[in-house]
Amino acid sequence: MKTAKDLKKQEAISTDKTAFRNFPMVPRVIFGSGCFSQLGDILLPMRKSSEAPFIFLVDDYFENEDFVAKVPLMFNDTVIFISADEEPKTAQVDALVSRIREKYNELPSGIIGIGGGTLLDLAKAVSILLNNKGLAKDYQGWDLVNKPALYHVGVPTISGTGAEVSRTTVLLGPERKLGINSDFTTFDQVLLDPDFTKSVPTEQWFYTGMDCFIHCVESLTGTYLNAFSQSYGEKAMELCKEVFLEDIPDAESRDKLMMASWHGGMSIAYSQVGVAHAMSYGLSYLLGVKHGVGNCLVFQHLEEFYPEGVKLFDQMMEKHGIALPKGICADLTQNDFDVMVNISLGLEPLWENALGKDWKTIMTPERLQELYQKI
Amino acid sequence: MKTAKDLKKQEAISTDKTAFRNFPMVPRVIFGSGCFSQLGDILLPMRKSSEAPFIFLVDDYFENEDFVAKVPLMFNDTVIFISADEEPKTAQVDALVSRIREKYNELPSGIIGIGGGTLLDLAKAVSILLNNKGLAKDYQGWDLVNKPALYHVGVPTISGTGAEVSRTTVLLGPERKLGINSDFTTFDQVLLDPDFTKSVPTEQWFYTGMDCFIHCVESLTGTYLNAFSQSYGEKAMELCKEVFLEDIPDAESRDKLMMASWHGGMSIAYSQVGVAHAMSYGLSYLLGVKHGVGNCLVFQHLEEFYPEGVKLFDQMMEKHGIALPKGICADLTQNDFDVMVNISLGLEPLWENALGKDWKTIMTPERLQELYQKI
Repeated sequence: MKTAKDLKKQEAISTDKTAFRNFPMVPRVIFGSGCFSQLGDILLPMRKSSEAPFIFLVDDYFENEDFVAKVPLMFNDTVIFISADEEPKTAQVDALVSRIREKYNELPSGIIGIGGGTLLDLAKAVSILLNNKGLAKDYQGWDLVNKPALYHVGVPTISGTGAEVSRTTVLLGPERKLGINSDFTTFDQVLLDPDFTKSVPTEQWFYTGMDCFIHCVESLTGTYLNAFSQSYGEKAMELCKEVFLEDIPDAESRDKLMMASWHGGMSIAYSQVGVAHAMSYGLSYLLGVKHGVGNCLVFQHLEEFYPEGVKLFDQMMEKHGIALPKGICADLTQNDFDVMVNISLGLEPLWENALGKDWKTIMTPERLQELYQKI
Repeated sequence: MKTAKDLKKQEAISTDKTAFRNFPMVPRVIFGSGCFSQLGDILLPMRKSSEAPFIFLVDDYFENEDFVAKVPLMFNDTVIFISADEEPKTAQVDALVSRIREKYNELPSGIIGIGGGTLLDLAKAVSILLNNKGLAKDYQGWDLVNKPALYHVGVPTISGTGAEVSRTTVLLGPERKLGINSDFTTFDQVLLDPDFTKSVPTEQWFYTGMDCFIHCVESLTGTYLNAFSQSYGEKAMELCKEVFLEDIPDAESRDKLMMASWHGGMSIAYSQVGVAHAMSYGLSYLLGVKHGVGNCLVFQHLEEFYPEGVKLFDQMMEKHGIALPKGICADLTQNDFDVMVNISLGLEPLWENALGKDWKTIMTPERLQELYQKI
């Protein structure tokens, strides 16, 4: 009798020829203003024992008594507040994992990330690394994770990144800014409570929302697009237009941007992002520019690649009186540009999606540097 | 130390106050023309042992050598061909479960449903009943299933029902037509291969597609609607309009109707269906009318509830030269009408979604009978 293990060996061989992606979706989602109050009920059956805590990784923007009172803590559960001022880093993940391992005898029951893309990505990465040996940087790439992550829950408090549905957690590592792309990365549970987004400052709301808008542009114009991704991308794009170009009531706008982020994330699931993200990763790596504003800094100069998208983007900028920082790359050395260009061109699937199989003949290092110099 | 079991008891109490639904999504989906060729690779790691077969429940429309050659059979796997001429029945589920239990020493590794809503619903129900005691009729209702279903996979071969994403399996029972609505009902894996829909006859394509269109109308106009369901419903509606009112290439149309069905199913996930489905269930129960055509027979007379929807429906009917059967209820007795009216009015969540909390004052048995008499 063949065992499941034998069969899995066969599988390792046979999936090499897989032409289609078997995409992991978030298996549980709860949506609605105020649904954060349900988190305790959701976590309870997932608790392994009173010794296996839930660890809440929370944006330190919420470091106040009112918020902590709402977190459904039991037994030895812990809240760890983390600043989202900087992009999440592989070393930060490793430090969190060590801290959790040292503090508890048992593995946690799960990790709950509450915040924007930074906190969601940290929660995903920590839940992976708690169940897989080695360092976070070892897993940057595609499908390098061997064992399932711990149970992990995403609670976005700002809308746009799509981190709540994606199968990646994008980290700044010693050598690159790159995602841990894996089927185990996807959250086991997502809680979408638009009330969290009430107090987001306008600029941050705009930059993070543009992450979603740019996902849609990159996905919908990409060569990887199929009808699955297209349907999600088109819906997310419509919602972005309503939120950023029309005048709809605040509560409706919060609901819709949260759904735009969700669908925008689903859209790149089967497809990929493109030029703006590839360039923005280089900018973040070298200068630590936050992802949302980095995307905008790049995207404004991409009219040759995304003419309609950039036109809409300009309208959105104008409507909300957003002034992007200038001269970001003015004082960079040739070495700096080389670093950015290398990081960016290393993201091959992004370029291939954007420009097709012959992308290397279209986007040369020189041309890419010229684009960076405009920023 | 409290055990997980103790905690689950607490949960049973605390979920009573749950105001939001924690919705189960299909955790794995693969999409694309020809992706059925990947099914073997997908199933392999889910196989428990060579003694635990996969059971393929397949619409007997595909009962030919060409198709069987494409089913990735191994060891003692079996294909069971089933006619979809009639709506799926609780007794049929029980018979399938007995047959499988008698034939094999071990529980199957999983159940794969290949076909339209009938086959998908049978696969869901059989996978539940193989792991839960009693009869299928015992579980008709909301959240009556105690134990997870066996691993089950849905492969729709016609688009529109939304059975591929829903948390229900609608069965004709001895006393009612009602779904087994449960978090365990949702498929573990869905494979969306639009190639299957190439050979669907026009009328069936239309009726089944209208199931999706009517889901959207009922969801989008319902009182349960939230931004989550709305975004899915709007996208599904757009896709239905493209497919049924515009002239798009065949391959694109197949892709888009498959995605419409998917999003339409997601839309009712958080919301509910309405008057058409509530009435159609009565029609199916008494007369065995198939769900797709039953919906259409009802919907044509619902302009007072869904004025815009019925207008679009009429346009779609005309464009595709569809002539609905007439006089279906011409020869029914008062007792027949009473049965239909009772079955239909028993579906309280559907009526409440459609007409609000005071639906009983709006939809009286007399008014409902008058509607049935038009059919």
